[in-house]
Amino acid sequence: MKYRLYYWPGIQGRGEFIRLALEDAGAEYVDVLRHSGGFSFPKEKPPFGLPYLVAGKQVVSQTPNILLYLGPRLRLAPKDEAGRLWVHQLQLTIADWLVEAHDTHHPIGSGLYYEDQRPEAKRRSADFLAERLPKYLDYFEGVLRSARGHFLLGKACSYADLSLFQMVAGLRYAFPVAMGRVARRFPLVIGLHDQVAARPRLARYLASNRRIPFNQQGIFRHYPELDETRKKSKKT
Amino acid sequence: MKYRLYYWPGIQGRGEFIRLALEDAGAEYVDVLRHSGGFSFPKEKPPFGLPYLVAGKQVVSQTPNILLYLGPRLRLAPKDEAGRLWVHQLQLTIADWLVEAHDTHHPIGSGLYYEDQRPEAKRRSADFLAERLPKYLDYFEGVLRSARGHFLLGKACSYADLSLFQMVAGLRYAFPVAMGRVARRFPLVIGLHDQVAARPRLARYLASNRRIPFNQQGIFRHYPELDETRKKSKKT
Repeated sequence: MKYRLYYWPGIQGRGEFIRLALEDAGAEYVDVLRHSGGFSFPKEKPPFGLPYLVAGKQVVSQTPNILLYLGPRLRLAPKDEAGRLWVHQLQLTIADWLVEAHDTHHPIGSGLYYEDQRPEAKRRSADFLAERLPKYLDYFEGVLRSARGHFLLGKACSYADLSLFQMVAGLRYAFPVAMGRVARRFPLVIGLHDQVAARPRLARYLASNRRIPFNQQGIFRHYPELDETRKKSKKT
Repeated sequence: MKYRLYYWPGIQGRGEFIRLALEDAGAEYVDVLRHSGGFSFPKEKPPFGLPYLVAGKQVVSQTPNILLYLGPRLRLAPKDEAGRLWVHQLQLTIADWLVEAHDTHHPIGSGLYYEDQRPEAKRRSADFLAERLPKYLDYFEGVLRSARGHFLLGKACSYADLSLFQMVAGLRYAFPVAMGRVARRFPLVIGLHDQVAARPRLARYLASNRRIPFNQQGIFRHYPELDETRKKSKKT
């Protein structure tokens, strides 16, 4: 099966969670909008937004739904129902986390510029770093601990592991100070990140120009003033 | 199968999307925490939060994931993969919308009081009502139009229809002025709401004391100052 992925060509964004799965599996795919300009949504069963994936006659949208579809086909999810539900549940938790990471720089409106919501972004980021980031990291640390393996499901790598890698990578880009400080408390999560990054196909992908660098148009953005504002204010 | 639902007993919240499906299907279930005090998360495959559902040995969490599991069993989703993916895709879009509806009153932090983030809530609500609410309503209006039926999938009612009903009901509670003004532009969505509300089992449920009234602890909250602030400021 040759997959066609439709996503914004200039950012990692949500599409990256799909790219990582396709790349790790060595799947044949075209990242359509990086090669051609336009697109129009299918009129039947239209997606609400990007990304969407075309596989033959099947069109799937919403990032976790695309991974639900791809998972067993790319051998990145169990085939039994209980296993599929569990990895999807983890993915949906990552999806919640991702929205919160995005909203640190866009707490008022995604259609407004960051510069137009900077005071609110500072407050939201402080809350995210103090309350939410440790909560999510602690949750996944616990899942890894009880899985007694290298991956969230134990021995086998799933698409949720690739997504957790991406969360750590993105949060390190956005919040290097805060992530540097909390990292030691979550060794299993950091270990998972490193192990995913070292998977041969992914390592080649991450070193290639197919991996779009993190940038200030994506979901993860680095604004130094949002990184550990609370700690800095204590220092001064 | 007797289902056990674990959710906060004092609010509709996310649990309501599950309750609506169970009630519409006439399923046998216990809303556990409305009858007994405590709960503890399963240690194996722990949920990140409530709601979670127990069905025999199966534990499922994350609202859209619970509906993915229940859908075919309650005859509220197609059995074929393409149909299941489509209804799940719609549900995930509703889930995104729900987060945005919540964040109108909690744009800075879910652990803080509304009163501690009121100015930010005003800005976020204005953006939500001007940009996001019409976008989501327009999307579902389009899906209903192309489905050429009474429901999102056409003739058969799915769990996504029940959830769309709940969105309309909740948004009307939270933003009566704004919803009153936009309603005429989205007759198919409003029609769907009315049709779902009239389904015999649901009508009985909605009139019963099992339906917790909307209140100021839930996801949908009515703060008059957040409803149509933009329009009001033009009038003065």
